[in-house]
Amino acid sequence: MNARADALHEGAAALGALIGVGLGPGDPELVTVKAARLIGEAKVVAFFAKEGRASHARAIAAPYLAPRCEEIALLYPVTTEIPFDNPEYAQALREFYEESVRRIRAILEQGRDVTLLCEGDPLLYGSFMHMFARLDARFRIEICAGVSGMSGCFAAARQPMAWGDDILTVLPATLDEDILAQRLAATDAAVVMKLGGNFAKLRRAMTRAGVIERAIYVERGAMPGEKIMRFVDKRDDEAPYFSMALVPGRGRRP
Amino acid sequence: MNARADALHEGAAALGALIGVGLGPGDPELVTVKAARLIGEAKVVAFFAKEGRASHARAIAAPYLAPRCEEIALLYPVTTEIPFDNPEYAQALREFYEESVRRIRAILEQGRDVTLLCEGDPLLYGSFMHMFARLDARFRIEICAGVSGMSGCFAAARQPMAWGDDILTVLPATLDEDILAQRLAATDAAVVMKLGGNFAKLRRAMTRAGVIERAIYVERGAMPGEKIMRFVDKRDDEAPYFSMALVPGRGRRP
Repeated sequence: MNARADALHEGAAALGALIGVGLGPGDPELVTVKAARLIGEAKVVAFFAKEGRASHARAIAAPYLAPRCEEIALLYPVTTEIPFDNPEYAQALREFYEESVRRIRAILEQGRDVTLLCEGDPLLYGSFMHMFARLDARFRIEICAGVSGMSGCFAAARQPMAWGDDILTVLPATLDEDILAQRLAATDAAVVMKLGGNFAKLRRAMTRAGVIERAIYVERGAMPGEKIMRFVDKRDDEAPYFSMALVPGRGRRP
Repeated sequence: MNARADALHEGAAALGALIGVGLGPGDPELVTVKAARLIGEAKVVAFFAKEGRASHARAIAAPYLAPRCEEIALLYPVTTEIPFDNPEYAQALREFYEESVRRIRAILEQGRDVTLLCEGDPLLYGSFMHMFARLDARFRIEICAGVSGMSGCFAAARQPMAWGDDILTVLPATLDEDILAQRLAATDAAVVMKLGGNFAKLRRAMTRAGVIERAIYVERGAMPGEKIMRFVDKRDDEAPYFSMALVPGRGRRP
């Protein structure tokens, strides 16, 4: 075999690397110095978006992208239209992730790196993890941590979240009302994510748990159109996907 | 009253602002673009450190500090020598925070801003919160979110932490063994912080909760001297303050 075939067929060194880059909560200035460098060096970037919508990830990374960077848009066929416990949802997402992996793998196999732009922190409820789990065995993968969406909301709300020996619980609002109520009652501090269509259920759970009076609603934290208010002051039950509820801890404060 | 007295005695505009800047987990490149800018613009920076030790916060910020920046070192009289439920500890910390507030307030009252350098994210178990709570009523305070220490550890360990509808619980290892065991058993994913002298207790709690086999130990994540291993592979019970245990979630993965 010649050197080129060697490299192509045997050497992992000839394969490209997947680089998962956390972009932070939304403000392009909350990208890390490392992420800005990695994005600027990228020859191929990939990002997730919802079909028919602009990609939040691409918008955050835009100021740092090199001029002739190749872009791969991975477009979710569904996000919140189908309940997540519906088998149809799982099936649609599985096919989408498999197709996304095929597209990324094709580039990596050409020996080119792919920089996957990830909102928030790549390893906390991120779509990146589904690529990582499928590609980790064969390809070199680098991960650059980012400011999480929840940290962006703490700062937007100017809200100290956990003190001393406070227990902090992170809850997806997709959980059952009983579970939400029970967990909210049993923790010192809580972050509830993925409010979307779950707002009315969360309002009931917060009331039952006795935490609604100190809860804060953050919509589009650290993004344009940011809204922050006491949870009880929110009159309707409509919340976009990018919204969170915070229940700040009150722990040990010398 | 003349304009100067007006400004001094009445106008909040004449007071300096406190700017809490998250520095991320330890690698100076994991500072955000915004934090790098704010540090570079600072004429006065303050940072916490332990008496007799170099400040981690200052070390992370060092590459971004302006040349003739004034520095205020706030030196903890105690950190982990006294158990946190000891009244002597609370008393020592209270006096230290009051003294730190006095030093910061003196600068703010001169109409100069103070940039407080905060490891990790300022609003998550941060010393900054003790300054914020004492100064917020009177002074303008800005907060710049940072990559949390735990996000730095997820990336260092290359460990997807929470998937889909996983519940993530953040636990200080200072809690009682029974509480730790119960909380670890009742969550999908966990981050245990402040290991320090609590390692042996945490090992027992993890064993009781049945999570020790999938737990990961991260020492000095994203810092020089980083060590990562399976929790069960750690032979001794010694852990520095900057160490965490991760119990990754295994939730919904389409």
